[in-house]
Amino acid sequence: MKAQLIVIEGLEGAGKSTAIECVQQLLQQVGIDQMIATREPGGTVFAEKIRDIVKATEQAEQLLPESELLLMMAARKQLVEHVIKPALAKGCWVIADRHALSTWAYQGGGRQLPDDMIQAVHHVILAEFKPDFTLYLDVDPSIGLERIGKRGQLDRIEQEDLAFFTRIRSKYLELVHTDDNIVLIDASQPLATVQQAIRAALMAYYPEFS
Amino acid sequence: MKAQLIVIEGLEGAGKSTAIECVQQLLQQVGIDQMIATREPGGTVFAEKIRDIVKATEQAEQLLPESELLLMMAARKQLVEHVIKPALAKGCWVIADRHALSTWAYQGGGRQLPDDMIQAVHHVILAEFKPDFTLYLDVDPSIGLERIGKRGQLDRIEQEDLAFFTRIRSKYLELVHTDDNIVLIDASQPLATVQQAIRAALMAYYPEFS
Repeated sequence: MKAQLIVIEGLEGAGKSTAIECVQQLLQQVGIDQMIATREPGGTVFAEKIRDIVKATEQAEQLLPESELLLMMAARKQLVEHVIKPALAKGCWVIADRHALSTWAYQGGGRQLPDDMIQAVHHVILAEFKPDFTLYLDVDPSIGLERIGKRGQLDRIEQEDLAFFTRIRSKYLELVHTDDNIVLIDASQPLATVQQAIRAALMAYYPEFS
Repeated sequence: MKAQLIVIEGLEGAGKSTAIECVQQLLQQVGIDQMIATREPGGTVFAEKIRDIVKATEQAEQLLPESELLLMMAARKQLVEHVIKPALAKGCWVIADRHALSTWAYQGGGRQLPDDMIQAVHHVILAEFKPDFTLYLDVDPSIGLERIGKRGQLDRIEQEDLAFFTRIRSKYLELVHTDDNIVLIDASQPLATVQQAIRAALMAYYPEFS
C-alpha cells in the first residue's frame, strides 16, 4: 500500500499529540514500520525559524493576519518539499500535526482573512498537494483552553481570547464537510473512547487495516 | 504637496544607499523636512526577524523560491502597514530601499518563479498599494558584484552566481517599461553624474521641485 499522509487537526488542547501516538500504534500493529511524525509550523531548519517568529509573544508590534498567513505557508512549503514529499516517495508514512486546514481555521476563521485570499496563496504555493486522510479532533474551545492553561507559558496564538478559538472551531466544523477524507472525532470524550474512535475511523477508511 | 513614496531599486552594488542620500538632500533643499528612509526586507520588529531568515547563509537546507517569496511579502506587509502608510498619512515622505519591483526581479527573474504566482500573492496582500515614483539604478551585474565583494561577508542572496544577477537585471529592464513612474538611471557612470541624473529625474517628475 502506498505511503499516506495522515493529518491530525484541532484546537489547542484537543489532544493532537496523544492522537498521533494512537495512529502510530495502529500503523505499527498493521505492520507499517516506516513512519515519521511532523508538526506545523516547523519540522525543518527554516520552518522552525519561522515557528519562532509566529509563536513569539512580541508586544511591540502586531504580526498582521496576512503576514501570519504568509509565514505559515512558507513553513509549510519547506516541510512539504523537504520532508513530507521525500518521505512519501520512499514509502514512509507521515503523521502530521496540522496542515492546510489549520490555515483555513486559524487565519480564515480566527483572523477572519477572506477564503479567497487563503485559497490564492495556498494554490500558488502547494497546487494540488493534499493529505490522504485527516482526523479533526473536535473539542469545545473552553475545554481546550483549560487544558493548555495547565501547561504553563502560552505562545502568541494561544494567548488569544475565547471568541478567537470559537471562530476557529466553527470554521473547522464547516471544513469537515468539504471532503470525504476528513473525519470528526469528538475529543471531549474520555481518552480511551477518543482513541477507540480514532482507530475505528482509520480502519473504516483503510479496509486493509482490519 | 501630498507626501510621496519614492523607491530606489537595483542590484547589489548599484549604489542604492548613496542614491537615497541624494534624494533626501534634494527633498531638504526644496523644503521637505518630514521624511524617513526604509529598507526591505526589514524596518519593523517582525520584518527584521524575517530579514535574518532570508539573509541567513544556511547550508543545511534550501530556502525554496516560493518560501523566499512569501517571507519577502510578509516583511513588506509589516513595513507597509506599520511604517509606510502611517508615515504618508501624516505627511511624511518615505524613501524606500526596495519595494515590489525587487520581488518581480529577484524571485521572478532570479529565482524564475512565474509572474502569475508573484502577481497572485502580491495582489491579495498589498492590493492596489504602490509607490509614487521609482528610480531603478541600472548597473552591469559584474560591476555590482565587484563592488559588494569589497564589503566583506556576503549574505545568502549575494552569494548567488552571475547568471542569477544577470536574470534579475533583465527583469528590471523589462519592468522599467511597465509604468511611467519608473525611471532608469545609468549607475555605471561616475558618482557625480549618477547623482545629477537622479536629481534631474526627480525634478522632471515633480515640477514643484524646480
